[in-house]
Amino acid sequence: MSSSTLPPVFLELARRVNNWGRWGADDEIGTLNLITDDVVRAAAAEVRAGRRVPLALPLRQDGVQTGLIPGRVNPLHTMVQINQETFGPGTVACSDDVVTMGLQAATHWDALTHVSHSGRLYNGRPAGTVTAHGGAAFSGIDKARHVVSRGVLLDVARALGRDRLDGGHAVTPEDLEAAEELARTRVRAGDIVLVRTGQIQVYLAGDRHGYGHPSPGLSLRTPEWFHARDVAAVADDTLTFEIFPPEVDDLWLPVHALDLVEMGMPQGQNWNLEELSTACGETGRYAFLLSATPEPFVGATGSPVAPVAIL
Amino acid sequence: MSSSTLPPVFLELARRVNNWGRWGADDEIGTLNLITDDVVRAAAAEVRAGRRVPLALPLRQDGVQTGLIPGRVNPLHTMVQINQETFGPGTVACSDDVVTMGLQAATHWDALTHVSHSGRLYNGRPAGTVTAHGGAAFSGIDKARHVVSRGVLLDVARALGRDRLDGGHAVTPEDLEAAEELARTRVRAGDIVLVRTGQIQVYLAGDRHGYGHPSPGLSLRTPEWFHARDVAAVADDTLTFEIFPPEVDDLWLPVHALDLVEMGMPQGQNWNLEELSTACGETGRYAFLLSATPEPFVGATGSPVAPVAIL
Amino acid sequence: MSSSTLPPVFLELARRVNNWGRWGADDEIGTLNLITDDVVRAAAAEVRAGRRVPLALPLRQDGVQTGLIPGRVNPLHTMVQINQETFGPGTVACSDDVVTMGLQAATHWDALTHVSHSGRLYNGRPAGTVTAHGGAAFSGIDKARHVVSRGVLLDVARALGRDRLDGGHAVTPEDLEAAEELARTRVRAGDIVLVRTGQIQVYLAGDRHGYGHPSPGLSLRTPEWFHARDVAAVADDTLTFEIFPPEVDDLWLPVHALDLVEMGMPQGQNWNLEELSTACGETGRYAFLLSATPEPFVGATGSPVAPVAIL
Amino acid sequence: MSSSTLPPVFLELARRVNNWGRWGADDEIGTLNLITDDVVRAAAAEVRAGRRVPLALPLRQDGVQTGLIPGRVNPLHTMVQINQETFGPGTVACSDDVVTMGLQAATHWDALTHVSHSGRLYNGRPAGTVTAHGGAAFSGIDKARHVVSRGVLLDVARALGRDRLDGGHAVTPEDLEAAEELARTRVRAGDIVLVRTGQIQVYLAGDRHGYGHPSPGLSLRTPEWFHARDVAAVADDTLTFEIFPPEVDDLWLPVHALDLVEMGMPQGQNWNLEELSTACGETGRYAFLLSATPEPFVGATGSPVAPVAIL
Repeated sequence: MSSSTLPPVFLELARRVNNWGRWGADDEIGTLNLITDDVVRAAAAEVRAGRRVPLALPLRQDGVQTGLIPGRVNPLHTMVQINQETFGPGTVACSDDVVTMGLQAATHWDALTHVSHSGRLYNGRPAGTVTAHGGAAFSGIDKARHVVSRGVLLDVARALGRDRLDGGHAVTPEDLEAAEELARTRVRAGDIVLVRTGQIQVYLAGDRHGYGHPSPGLSLRTPEWFHARDVAAVADDTLTFEIFPPEVDDLWLPVHALDLVEMGMPQGQNWNLEELSTACGETGRYAFLLSATPEPFVGATGSPVAPVAIL
Repeated sequence: MSSSTLPPVFLELARRVNNWGRWGADDEIGTLNLITDDVVRAAAAEVRAGRRVPLALPLRQDGVQTGLIPGRVNPLHTMVQINQETFGPGTVACSDDVVTMGLQAATHWDALTHVSHSGRLYNGRPAGTVTAHGGAAFSGIDKARHVVSRGVLLDVARALGRDRLDGGHAVTPEDLEAAEELARTRVRAGDIVLVRTGQIQVYLAGDRHGYGHPSPGLSLRTPEWFHARDVAAVADDTLTFEIFPPEVDDLWLPVHALDLVEMGMPQGQNWNLEELSTACGETGRYAFLLSATPEPFVGATGSPVAPVAIL
Repeated sequence: MSSSTLPPVFLELARRVNNWGRWGADDEIGTLNLITDDVVRAAAAEVRAGRRVPLALPLRQDGVQTGLIPGRVNPLHTMVQINQETFGPGTVACSDDVVTMGLQAATHWDALTHVSHSGRLYNGRPAGTVTAHGGAAFSGIDKARHVVSRGVLLDVARALGRDRLDGGHAVTPEDLEAAEELARTRVRAGDIVLVRTGQIQVYLAGDRHGYGHPSPGLSLRTPEWFHARDVAAVADDTLTFEIFPPEVDDLWLPVHALDLVEMGMPQGQNWNLEELSTACGETGRYAFLLSATPEPFVGATGSPVAPVAIL
Repeated sequence: MSSSTLPPVFLELARRVNNWGRWGADDEIGTLNLITDDVVRAAAAEVRAGRRVPLALPLRQDGVQTGLIPGRVNPLHTMVQINQETFGPGTVACSDDVVTMGLQAATHWDALTHVSHSGRLYNGRPAGTVTAHGGAAFSGIDKARHVVSRGVLLDVARALGRDRLDGGHAVTPEDLEAAEELARTRVRAGDIVLVRTGQIQVYLAGDRHGYGHPSPGLSLRTPEWFHARDVAAVADDTLTFEIFPPEVDDLWLPVHALDLVEMGMPQGQNWNLEELSTACGETGRYAFLLSATPEPFVGATGSPVAPVAIL
């Protein structure tokens, strides 16, 4: 582990949003602690129409990965049995599947251990507690257990009157507040915020390379806003979550480091928010019950999720 | 494909529960059609405490598979990056994971195409529409899109006064009704029924081989009961779903064939219902909002799911 | 299986090179039968310098596959243990690796079952004997057991005075004979022929897409020449083996079908013949002992190989 | 990396067999340097009959791994295409395969980086040069390029008049010399030695668990003997290579550490030497040309190999 080369602007923000110790020295789930039974009860009360909107991209070999991120492979789905008559000719026949995939390849949650900086993970644990054998000893994605809360769509693209934001657009706290105003609800403690940039339209239109970057995404200034509102988790519709290339030269993935390492707040990427945007636009209601529990891979630093908004 | 050797007892049951054409010749989701917006709205109203209970087993290499079912491998989780300083020394470092697993290896849903009999799949489609390249052309698990409804725990083990049912116990309609009485709610159209046998305790106690079989499970007689109640889906806490070895000599997997092929009703296996049983026992309420959307692998005949009961 | 749409030109060639039944109705290895002990003894006598030239491409994620052939994934190499002190702190530590890869992804042999036509495989077996569970019931790559013989480099590019052949160059029998003349040896029964087009230079220069196609490769007319010479196997330095796009409109992969299905002769692809070409050019000797046994995956229709020429 | 707890007996042996710097500070292949052109030329001259004997186990899901070594999974072979008519109905149809496997799962070579001790790898490099992303920066298995030399079968089981050695039998230098006498050849510089214990018969008879341990294997005292003879590599027919459990309490894998880290000598495991033993017994000749180049996975700490002895 090299010594940190992170600039003062980052270190100052890190100091401001840091949650280490807030839920005890043993805590492994960070801001998910903010989702209380009360929050969930209130979230269930947001269900009006009974409409369900899925937010995951289909899992397929021509997914969003292009080879740019080494090892993060799109799902390779193969059959190990096809109508196999295991118990003899003419009996009931079975089909079975196997998959190989990068856990961060498609619609996913980053675990708090997905990034480290200065040799540290969330809650001050050493980066070295992530190993080849076993993955993350602390704060693996399986520790989340359940991710269900009130979801709020902050439809920044719509709030700014665009189909989708430009590649160079850093989503600022002011943008979030414009979207909040459109949503006519105030983001509050325990909420899961979905930020829509519209960037996933690029992928849906078939341009996998263009989707990746340049990409709009969250600004360096947003973690402090999420921290102030005590948000439980944030997801968006981009590959990189934060604006990419970054706002400050040579300061790569600062939002990842602030959200995951300092605040202990899970991040979601590659969420398809298009159908949800339409649904919310139709009703004018941007809050809903969100169910988005990651697959509980033990020790994983990220995991696929099939989120559903229940409106 | 050999010609069918299935006995008259099966064929008669098949005739009674058959739903082919009920939702049109093009339908690919079967009884999931029964989950209407109204059903979901009512399901949300079942949330009282805001408590969330996860029902998935942790995904790990020492999972429930023992090698008995060829190709159905437990999750192999490996790291492709560990605190990798992609952007240079001292920068934010990333960890990334890859997994290889059988889609039916752990807590999962069977897609309607997981089994065929007599050369046919649900809605009369040819078994040959499942291929090595592309998987299931129809009724792949991705077609489910969202699985959210009212869940009802039918705690058969508790209703019969046992910790867990014996290996040879076929769960009958009468057992289901005993558990329904305990639950003080009537199973109705669109519900997702969770049948607890307690068998998963065997796995949780470390006996992977004993968990598999002999195993209690659903009787040949249950599909007709589920059909009468217009249940949307059924899951239980066993490896084989139905009693195994089967009730009728040489009639293997008849419940699979009746549920999946004839009724078009998804089945869930290896669901951990122990914590849920405790929670329901404490409150006396066995109905809840269930969120259980499978990972949308395109063309897959089954998929992992991380279900959550919201009480 | 659709009925064949193959044209008369193909069917006539098929008739001429057909070897079905030549080594008995039960034979699974085709022309590898031509490698007798005598052939191998003579092959060993070709070793003069003791120099060894490896012919496999390094196995890596940025290999020759580009996603064009669905499912044929480049090797994904991950660590499952890194300096793991399994037996306690301070003991000997172990590292272990896992790979996922298409068996035909890199330098490989096609098994005789890699292609079928008109519903048939080599020796007249039904195409349906290749299944999802178990792969090829007959003529899997593991049946080859050992592939060691005299190798002859037919350096067509050099014989024609080129660095590498153009994308549209179909290597003809006349080209092979020009290279044979350069090699100053006559190709004979049991030989393994390596045909150099130079096309792999495109990949080695970093152009993965350009490597694939348009590609020079073997002409439709070559199987008959290989048949006349009783060659045991043929490999070249292209992705497609034969010229691609093909010589006859809408007649795709005819050489595959003639070599594998009709003659029962294994084909090798993506062999790196550049260093070998240099070595042979230096000594003027183009014959050598070739050791090229495929990894014995049971029932596989192809397999990676790490061939070595011993000069 | 913990500080070493290795005992004086180990450290003294390490000192005696150490080859660090012998082939320069940059060397990555250790004793493979001993295979010169002269050695290979002489090896080719050992070919008399032209008979080829394969030494690899078939690669299959019920291979030698039992789950004991986490992550080292048996080959999972699946089809991604089966008689797929890519170019339209009635055209030539293709089948394609994918595999996931532990590189050390079956018949394989250990790379020099497969183990470390006291924080060091062969030639004094830091253990930390093996990483999740990229594997071994030095001495990956791909650096071997080619492994062809004279092979000598030291048939210890036969020399001691046994079918196979007992589980507790540590093969000593005296045993090796008894087998050398039987072989009527002297092991010399650059040879690859194959040590037969007969233990693989346990696996071949269907007892996978019994094969693993207790297992006969090489004694702690053998590395010095191999060092004195300047052997290029050693392989045997066991899972653990060395006797297991070990000869000295709490001194685990000492032979691995001496061979790989100190001497820089590759080790082979799970080689099937039964057919070779029969062949050598018939002719009374135990020397041959051995061709055993590992699959060149870049940065891998081990790799499958399909070795062939040419007699």
